[in-house]
Amino acid sequence: MLMPHLPSTVYLSAPDLVQLVRRKGLPACIAGVAERIEADFRRWGEFDKSARVASHSSDGVIELMPIADAAQFAFKYVNGHPKNTRHGLPTVMAFGVLADVDTGTPRLLSELTLTTAIRTAAMSAVAARRLARPGSTRMALIGNGAQSEFQALAFRDLVGVRELRLFDTDRAASAKLAANLAGLGFKLTICGSAAEAAQGVDIISTVTADKANATIVTPEMVRPGMHINGVGGDCPGKTELHPAVLADAAVFVEYEPQTRVEGDIQQMPADFGVTELWQVLAGHHPGRTHAEQVTVFDSVGFALEDYSALCFVRDAAAELGLGQVIELMPRVADPKNLFAALAPSAEAAEQDAGLGVADALDQAHAFQHA
Amino acid sequence: MLMPHLPSTVYLSAPDLVQLVRRKGLPACIAGVAERIEADFRRWGEFDKSARVASHSSDGVIELMPIADAAQFAFKYVNGHPKNTRHGLPTVMAFGVLADVDTGTPRLLSELTLTTAIRTAAMSAVAARRLARPGSTRMALIGNGAQSEFQALAFRDLVGVRELRLFDTDRAASAKLAANLAGLGFKLTICGSAAEAAQGVDIISTVTADKANATIVTPEMVRPGMHINGVGGDCPGKTELHPAVLADAAVFVEYEPQTRVEGDIQQMPADFGVTELWQVLAGHHPGRTHAEQVTVFDSVGFALEDYSALCFVRDAAAELGLGQVIELMPRVADPKNLFAALAPSAEAAEQDAGLGVADALDQAHAFQHA
Repeated sequence: MLMPHLPSTVYLSAPDLVQLVRRKGLPACIAGVAERIEADFRRWGEFDKSARVASHSSDGVIELMPIADAAQFAFKYVNGHPKNTRHGLPTVMAFGVLADVDTGTPRLLSELTLTTAIRTAAMSAVAARRLARPGSTRMALIGNGAQSEFQALAFRDLVGVRELRLFDTDRAASAKLAANLAGLGFKLTICGSAAEAAQGVDIISTVTADKANATIVTPEMVRPGMHINGVGGDCPGKTELHPAVLADAAVFVEYEPQTRVEGDIQQMPADFGVTELWQVLAGHHPGRTHAEQVTVFDSVGFALEDYSALCFVRDAAAELGLGQVIELMPRVADPKNLFAALAPSAEAAEQDAGLGVADALDQAHAFQHA
Repeated sequence: MLMPHLPSTVYLSAPDLVQLVRRKGLPACIAGVAERIEADFRRWGEFDKSARVASHSSDGVIELMPIADAAQFAFKYVNGHPKNTRHGLPTVMAFGVLADVDTGTPRLLSELTLTTAIRTAAMSAVAARRLARPGSTRMALIGNGAQSEFQALAFRDLVGVRELRLFDTDRAASAKLAANLAGLGFKLTICGSAAEAAQGVDIISTVTADKANATIVTPEMVRPGMHINGVGGDCPGKTELHPAVLADAAVFVEYEPQTRVEGDIQQMPADFGVTELWQVLAGHHPGRTHAEQVTVFDSVGFALEDYSALCFVRDAAAELGLGQVIELMPRVADPKNLFAALAPSAEAAEQDAGLGVADALDQAHAFQHA
């Protein structure tokens, strides 16, 4: 029996996402997600936004990040556990869902660990493209863990960075980063300190993992005209920038209510002035106003970026024929008769299992536009 | 390469859950979930609780319901769209996750549409077992949709109900319910109104779906000593009980901060007195205090019930060998080197795909208790 709207969900596993990135190319994925982020931030007012819901423990945090527009609801599950790498697990792991607002049907369940690395870098570069001085080519990259290569590529392709000065308290991480970036068009220097890495650069990117009130960027390191891309200060008690650096800069954030609690500005008074980045992207705010200004993007990661990334991977997977249809939701002949699906003799729930990915995505598309 | 803790996730589809219920039996599942709920509510103080996060639209609501204790984080995704049945979709669809608090690894991804029907009924019966008069055997069941059979069985097995008086504005729904319950030990009467259904009963259960400030139970229907199990008033603007019914009763709730917003008590002043049910289950509050008292369980559904249900299905699936291991998270040789998993030549992400469900559950168990 064919239902008008089967509750079919397409599942993209981590191996599916690896295939997706290999086939499209990582630079194309970063650029594609950046384009989505920019377009979605420009229609900021259409989204039902809230700060993410965080569950903190001694070792880390688990967060749920929901957002919706009139057509789609999205959320991400994501953790942050700095000690995970000691156990062979990534610090940050994630997955997410896109659902239809009008029926609540989940349409896509996707890995987002790899995708989060891509969208975080894309977000940083989208911000820097507006906030760094034109012609910025030299960047300090402080924190050379799982996120660092993605930042490097995003800044190469979207901002024009060609020279990277690397620093990490774990020198092996810097060596890994340098090896991964060999032959990708960068001049690379491994530095002995954050201050050394910051010498002569246009941009400082901090992507560190430790859950601590760290002071990685101090006022002495900052020169007029620099842009600071602060990614790793993203949790209460987890900061990277000295308060004086913030005090002397024009500070831009994703979603102010969330960043007040989680960002580096958690160190500042509640009335410390910041600008939401969408204002710049939508043309309501000029962004950087003069060449000597120091700009800070106090990035914590906002649900809208994951919405954008989920839409990108959904469409790319459909184009490449990746993913599989899963029966996360029961298919019932009569939705008021859930009980019948469980009765020993019932077979209704086992019918209609033959729907393909393309059918499901077509149906999702058709339904969306019905 | 074997990682100390592979981020393996066991996936239970809706068809898996159907098999689980068929093999264990629905009554055993309801009883098993009820036992878990009662045990978990007794250790209420160990949980990090918050009201669910709701995204409302004109047609319904999509909610995320997180909760955690020291070892496990759980959340449920659930929608409520009363018009879905017109499209052949269930009003309520859900799935959920259990994750390790110490690393953030999701260990179980499970359908929760069918499971929610079970846990909601189990919760109602756990409450009624303490709040209804001893010896209650007659129940009005108002709203004969997808949840109604589950309520009937839970009250039969856990409370001792043997006579049901059915009412629904859709008479076909009552006929469906009566047909499903035939031969299951009930005396059944289909009634022409809610008031008729309430005549002579010990318990009134309301499980209606319409998103409206309805007045299904009015003061004239209530007799001394009745217990009212109000399940369908669970959303702002969605109520079932006349305020005067609440005013004259002892009202019990799951989690007060959530119920103030979503429950039938949204109609009452903010200082209207209620008791959280865990107080009764843990022996801190007597519950019903005399035979003439009218008691109300203003149930909206709380994340802890889903935590309990997820633990039940996880253990039952392990016992029955149901489910499959999915690669929702990438397996990387070096967690600081996510980039390598995406490089065209890398094979690391494709290794270690042969782990079985039993191994993964064993590992999850071992890790939990390490």
